[in-house]
Parts: sequence; C-alpha cells; structure tokens
Amino acid sequence: MGEQNGPSPRERTKRVRVGGVAIGGGAPVSVQSMTTTPTSDPVATLAEIDALERAGCEIVRLAIPSAASLDGFRACCEASPLPVVADVHFDHRLAIEAARLGAAGLRVNPGNIGDDSKVDAVIDAAGEAGIPIRIGVNAGSLDPAVDARGDLDHESKIVESAVSFVRHFEERGFFDIVLSAKTHSVPETVAVNRRLSRALPHVPLHLGVTEAGGPTQATVKNSVALGILLSEGIGDTIRVSVTAPPVEEVEVAWSILSALGLRRKGPEIVSCPTCARCTIDLLALEAEVERRLRGIAAPITVAVMGCEVNGPGEARAADIGVAGGKGRGVLFAGGERIAVVSRDEIVDALMDQIARRFP
Amino acid sequence: MGEQNGPSPRERTKRVRVGGVAIGGGAPVSVQSMTTTPTSDPVATLAEIDALERAGCEIVRLAIPSAASLDGFRACCEASPLPVVADVHFDHRLAIEAARLGAAGLRVNPGNIGDDSKVDAVIDAAGEAGIPIRIGVNAGSLDPAVDARGDLDHESKIVESAVSFVRHFEERGFFDIVLSAKTHSVPETVAVNRRLSRALPHVPLHLGVTEAGGPTQATVKNSVALGILLSEGIGDTIRVSVTAPPVEEVEVAWSILSALGLRRKGPEIVSCPTCARCTIDLLALEAEVERRLRGIAAPITVAVMGCEVNGPGEARAADIGVAGGKGRGVLFAGGERIAVVSRDEIVDALMDQIARRFP
Repeated sequence: MGEQNGPSPRERTKRVRVGGVAIGGGAPVSVQSMTTTPTSDPVATLAEIDALERAGCEIVRLAIPSAASLDGFRACCEASPLPVVADVHFDHRLAIEAARLGAAGLRVNPGNIGDDSKVDAVIDAAGEAGIPIRIGVNAGSLDPAVDARGDLDHESKIVESAVSFVRHFEERGFFDIVLSAKTHSVPETVAVNRRLSRALPHVPLHLGVTEAGGPTQATVKNSVALGILLSEGIGDTIRVSVTAPPVEEVEVAWSILSALGLRRKGPEIVSCPTCARCTIDLLALEAEVERRLRGIAAPITVAVMGCEVNGPGEARAADIGVAGGKGRGVLFAGGERIAVVSRDEIVDALMDQIARRFP
Repeated sequence: MGEQNGPSPRERTKRVRVGGVAIGGGAPVSVQSMTTTPTSDPVATLAEIDALERAGCEIVRLAIPSAASLDGFRACCEASPLPVVADVHFDHRLAIEAARLGAAGLRVNPGNIGDDSKVDAVIDAAGEAGIPIRIGVNAGSLDPAVDARGDLDHESKIVESAVSFVRHFEERGFFDIVLSAKTHSVPETVAVNRRLSRALPHVPLHLGVTEAGGPTQATVKNSVALGILLSEGIGDTIRVSVTAPPVEEVEVAWSILSALGLRRKGPEIVSCPTCARCTIDLLALEAEVERRLRGIAAPITVAVMGCEVNGPGEARAADIGVAGGKGRGVLFAGGERIAVVSRDEIVDALMDQIARRFP
C-alpha cells in the first residue's frame, strides 16, 4: 500500500528478540502494552498480564518507579506468560537490577538517565543479561547536547537525539536496540519516524502516539499515524496508548494491523452504519454478534447488514452473513442463502453456523 | 505530511457547492453523515439532523427508500439547518422528485439505477435544479459493461466503472460531480482512491470506508484509510461509517481531521495511558474532563496527566493542564504552575481556568 519499490523498510532492520518474540528483520509487527497495576503487587499485575495475553498482547511492559517494585517485578518475570520489559526512568540502578531479576528487555530514555557513565552501566547490564534495550526519546528526554543547539527545530531535536543515543550504544558495542520516538502529535510522529527510518535503516522502530487521550481520540490518532507509517513499511512493533484499560489498547492495535492486512486475529465484522432503509435494530444486533464472537480465533468475515441495497451482496460475500429487515434475517454461509429466521433467532443461528463450519 | 511536491490533489479538483458548503478546489475537507430515522418521519429526522449539526456535521444525507418518504424529505429540506442530500437507489423517479422537492444534492449509484435513459433523466433533473450529484460506486453497483470484462480485477472494475460514469455525466454536459468509491477493505479503499485521483484529477472525491463494523473496528478502519489518503492530499469531503449513532461518526470524522492538522474543532486532550507510576484515578478524571469540555468550542489543548515522567512537562506545554498524583493535582496554565488542588477540586479548577482564559 505504501507504493515503495524494493524491500520494505521493516525487512531491512536488524532482528532482536524480546523473550520469544522477534522484532525487526521482517518479523510480524508485534503488539505491546503496559500494565497499570502497581508492579509491587504481582498478583494484580499478573492478572492484568493474563488479560492482556488473552486479548493478543505479545510483549508486556511494567513500570519500576522505585526499588519497592523490584520484588514484584521479579515475581512477574518468573510467572508471566509474556516477555516482560522493565520500564525505568531517572534511576539507572533500577534498570540494572531489573536486568538481573529476569527482564526480557529494558526500556530507558537515556535523556533522563543522566551522564554517560550511568547510561553505560545500563548498557553493560543488558549486555551481560543478553537482553535488548528499547531506547525511548520524547520531548522531555532529549539529548542535552542536541537540545542546546539553536539551529534545530523541535522535530529535528527528537530525530538528532535518537540518532545520537543509538550511535552511543553502538560505539559501546551494543546492537540489540529497538528505538522509539513518541509525541502526541500525529504529523510529528509520522515525520520523525520517516526520518529515523532513513537515518537508521538498520534499527527496528517501536511506534506509538503517546498521551493520545480518551478512547475515540486516541484510537483515531494512533490509527492515523501508525496506519500511515506501517503502510509505508515503517515500524516493527507497536504500542497504542489510550487512556482506558490496557486490553482496549491491544484491541485497537490488532484492529490497525488487520485493517492494513498486515496481520489478522479473529473475525472481522462487516456491518452497515444503518440509515432510513434499515428496518431492524442493527446496532443492538451488531453489538451482540461482536460480543458473541469474542472467543472465536478463526479469521472469518461475518456480515451483519440491515438493508436491501448492500445487505444480500455483503452477506453473500462474507463467510457467514445475515441480511436483516422487518423482524427477520436471511442467513448466508459460504455464498449460499441457507435460511430465513426470526430476529430472536439470528444470533444463535449465526453462531451455530460458525461453530459447524469453523470448529 | 504526504511529501508530495506542488499543489495537493485537493487543490486541483473542481469546486462544487452542496447548499452553502463548498467541496473541492481546496475547500476545507467537509464532514458528512446520514440520518438513521425514517425519512417519512420528519420530526424524528429533524431532531437527528439538529444533533448532527451540534456535533459538527456539515452536510446530511437522507435515504429515500420509497415514495412514502418524499413528503418527509421535503419537510426536512425546508427546516434543516444543514444542506440535505437525497440518497436514492434503484428507482430514478425518486431522485428526480427529490431534486424538485428541494434537495441540496443527489447521491445515486448509476450502476443500480438502470439504463442510460434513467440515469440521464436524473442528470437532467439535477441540472434543472442546479444541484450537484455524488456518483457512488461500490461492489454492488459496477458499470455492467465494465463488470463483464474478464481482463480486470475487482479493484480495477471499481476504478473503471467510476471513470465510465463520470465520462457519461460529463458528455451530457453535467460537471457538478462528487465521486465516491467505497469498499469495506482499507487497502482497496486506499488503492482505488489513489487511482481515481490520478485518473480524474479534476473530480472531488468523497471518502469513506463503508460497512466498517462496530465502534472500535470502524474507527480504526476509517482512520487508517482516510488518514493515509488525506495525508496525501486526496479527498475533499468525508463520511465515516460506524455501526453506532451517527453523532459518533461525526466525532470520529473531526478527530481524523484534527489528528492530521487539517481542521480543528474544540479542545484536544493530552492524557497518558497510565501505568504503575500513576497514583490517581486518571481514567475517571480524563473521562470527566472530556465530558465537561463537550460544550467548549475553543481549539485549546488540555493536558490530563498522571505521573512525574511526562506529567509536568505536558501540563506545562498545554494551554491548561493538570499533573495528578497522590490525591491531588498540580495545575498549569499558559506554561505556569498556578495552583495545587485536591483530587475533588481538579475538574472544577480546570474548567474555571478555561472559562477565564478562553471566554
């Protein structure tokens, strides 16, 4: 979709591994999220990790705000079904401890860790543990030397800071790097990551729009920015930020990957927005079908349509479909019209067909 | 953001007018939606139109499924605060009547209207009324001559059908055209509209992903497809399709335009996704702020942040911001720290500052 020629940028990045998950080098774009429970409470945090895994999260990040979280972090690393990344700001000693306690990766913003000796100690700890580091850059964690330059605009300061950090890590002999540069602006996120992909074509990029707001605005901002970048082949792993329970972030992330045709997880629903032609309670019907499909892993297309204009065509084109109207629904499966059922029976009949055809 | 050189595609399209709203020729990308009430019930339909207008809808479309809707349609045209477009399928006589009854525009899919004499009668009725026609094309309404060609894939059939319909309208001397080609596939929507923009650079494009599903999936699919196209300068007016109340479609549409920096309406919220560092009920706080901001038209940025890493920086950078934690919030306005208030007082204090500074 990006109309680029030759291999896509994400095929040219170096492959690194976070636990069992590959990032870069043409690996499938992976889905990350972050827990919101106190890391010092491993029972609550592991419950959230389990919910994230069920939603399709592949890498989970835990904040370590202080040493009081380290015991909980270790317990999570031991019991988590997902690779656990330690998210550390300001205090390099917490990152070093996390590497020793079983982290599958570290995330640090070198710009808020302090002088090079502290950053180098983190690099060396990750090297000893054999784990990658995600280098984060945002407006609050620029390279001080870059930030001081009067000749650069804000976008360039983010790009140049990221380049400077990566060079520093590589000069120290550390190459298991994933890079992220996040802002809450979509145009800036797109521009910065295009520039990073050109400046550092070998470094896998972690994409996200940060501090993106509540569900609607954040879903839109992440979909627009990640949609543009991923369609150009830029971006190796993603984390959607929404001010909402983290499971919702994972659903949005998968929906972005599905929309682009990059990866597919579970059913896709084709349903119309309804209009004056609709003579069935389609919103309730669609919501009920969506809810009942949650447990289904098969990548099937299910049409839930409410009118005669596009309804029969879409229902016929889908794996399973219903064209509803006037208190009843015409069921289609595999392109064949198979039954007419009353409104109350539609959802059960759809689910019954799915269970039979996609066991 | 599209990195194109020279004027953007949307500056090269012919400008048409739907009531008082300009489409094309560099006009601001307008936001459309469609009513879901029976058009035969003008009281309910006008109430929905009013709600859509308050949400920021600029052009509204009403389905006319049969002649029983024509009286209601006329009543809506007379009383609607928004230009009303008649959406007609199959029966060309309904479109002709709608043009006579005061429609600000027609939407027809020539591919389901029938033979040329019927299409021409609709064209002539629009010409007499001095209103534009949106030519719609989708999988179910291809040009039969194009659809019969074995040398074309599905995407090409949509493109060639659209080109064929536009040529027919222009050969009859009708040029007030907006063109839409919708599918429920994001890659196909992007590819088709890129090709149409190149094949018919003078024709304004109406963008949307149709039958896109429930709120999350539909928001993602529309944001990705419209985000990619609009960022390339393609698209003159948009309609987001969501299986949800139409006011939600309008909110998503504006959010897409805001995210791209194309248009701005009302406040933008910068809020973090929360993590283990968050010591305040940020999800509830953000939702409350979002709700209270609904009536505000000023294009301000409001930060609602929950931790020490990015909180103070983002709150300071916003027009108004709060960095919350441990049962209290530090308020910032215009880059200055202005107060510390308890959790219960945060929202009122924020709204008070907004009322004072952006009256």
